[in-house]
Amino acid sequence: MGRGLTFALPKGRILEQVTPLLGAAGIDIASALTNAGRKLTLDLEGGHRLLLVKPTDVPTYVEYGVADVGIAGRDTLEEQGRDLYEPVDLGIAPCRLAVAEPSNAPVALHRGTSVRVATKYPNLSRRHYASKGIAAEIIPLYGSVELGALTSLADQIVDLVESGETLRQNGLVEVETVLHVTSRLVVHPPSLKLKPAVSKLIDALRSAPQSVRPSGMQPGKVSVA
Amino acid sequence: MGRGLTFALPKGRILEQVTPLLGAAGIDIASALTNAGRKLTLDLEGGHRLLLVKPTDVPTYVEYGVADVGIAGRDTLEEQGRDLYEPVDLGIAPCRLAVAEPSNAPVALHRGTSVRVATKYPNLSRRHYASKGIAAEIIPLYGSVELGALTSLADQIVDLVESGETLRQNGLVEVETVLHVTSRLVVHPPSLKLKPAVSKLIDALRSAPQSVRPSGMQPGKVSVA
Repeated sequence: MGRGLTFALPKGRILEQVTPLLGAAGIDIASALTNAGRKLTLDLEGGHRLLLVKPTDVPTYVEYGVADVGIAGRDTLEEQGRDLYEPVDLGIAPCRLAVAEPSNAPVALHRGTSVRVATKYPNLSRRHYASKGIAAEIIPLYGSVELGALTSLADQIVDLVESGETLRQNGLVEVETVLHVTSRLVVHPPSLKLKPAVSKLIDALRSAPQSVRPSGMQPGKVSVA
Repeated sequence: MGRGLTFALPKGRILEQVTPLLGAAGIDIASALTNAGRKLTLDLEGGHRLLLVKPTDVPTYVEYGVADVGIAGRDTLEEQGRDLYEPVDLGIAPCRLAVAEPSNAPVALHRGTSVRVATKYPNLSRRHYASKGIAAEIIPLYGSVELGALTSLADQIVDLVESGETLRQNGLVEVETVLHVTSRLVVHPPSLKLKPAVSKLIDALRSAPQSVRPSGMQPGKVSVA
């Protein structure tokens, strides 16, 4: 390991919101991304390095120390329950993990009910229903979770909701929020001790100007909702 | 349930190879697919219905009986270890689950070695290394598995290989085959008893003409390698 940092960042829509935030903290990923093509590892200015990984893989690369820091959604972090340091809630990519069901087939849940639930988040879903005293049969899906409710594979689904438009298009209604989700900086604990650039990055991200954040979102220490 | 069948088919590249096979068996999905747009459920001629799902979700829809039949790769079926009836090896989408490693950092494996392995197939991988008496630490990944080897997250990877071109581009070499993979018809066991159309489909697929199969592949009963 040199003094530069290795970043594990999620491919896809969150990367657009991450770019100006890191830019304001002095890490330029925009120019490297412009010429990235299909490459998954990119060299950055200042001896830093970027790994572009699937969002659910970010915690793995950080936990094993292949990346010093990463950016991951609270949904992924809590579902996987890893032992990472999460020093900054970046306030970006806000959405919620929610329970939804067909608008024409509402489930009357009460203590003792049993319900079939399709989800990409089996651990968080199990915990959610258990906390309400409801026996849920969790059916893990990898692709479209809405289809689970549309085909009666499941009575309810637990899925990420941003605008709610996908639910509406599929005749589903949101009935409960399981978790409010934003993206967080995650750090490989030994890197924090060994690499001064990590603390500098944390400080810079905590004081990043409002102009590089989505409207109304504030950075902050991570709090447990 | 009516007399028509519900099919769970994998979205993506395998669907192209499935279409002529099902066509020869009297199930026309080509016309429905032409007008599908982004729809995930399609009505077919003859009262049949089509669900387009992620390949790894096919066994779930068939196991719960939401679909009467499905088509799934042997890799998915053996990784998930579900209790489905697999009456026809369709011989399509041939590939192999293989062990690969960096060409410039070969691992000398012998009984007692420990090795870190990145894969989308934790169960099959665990079983493979255990059968050789090797202690493998399995690191599940959801996105690019090659990146696991390139970044030294893992010493070896276990991944699907078709031509081997992706491995070569990443400086990896294939060192062992874990499983030969083709796609299979899978059936919800009660549907076989209740719906005569299922047996008809099985017979038709077993005798499908050579012209609708990829070169050299033969249908057959499923055998355990």
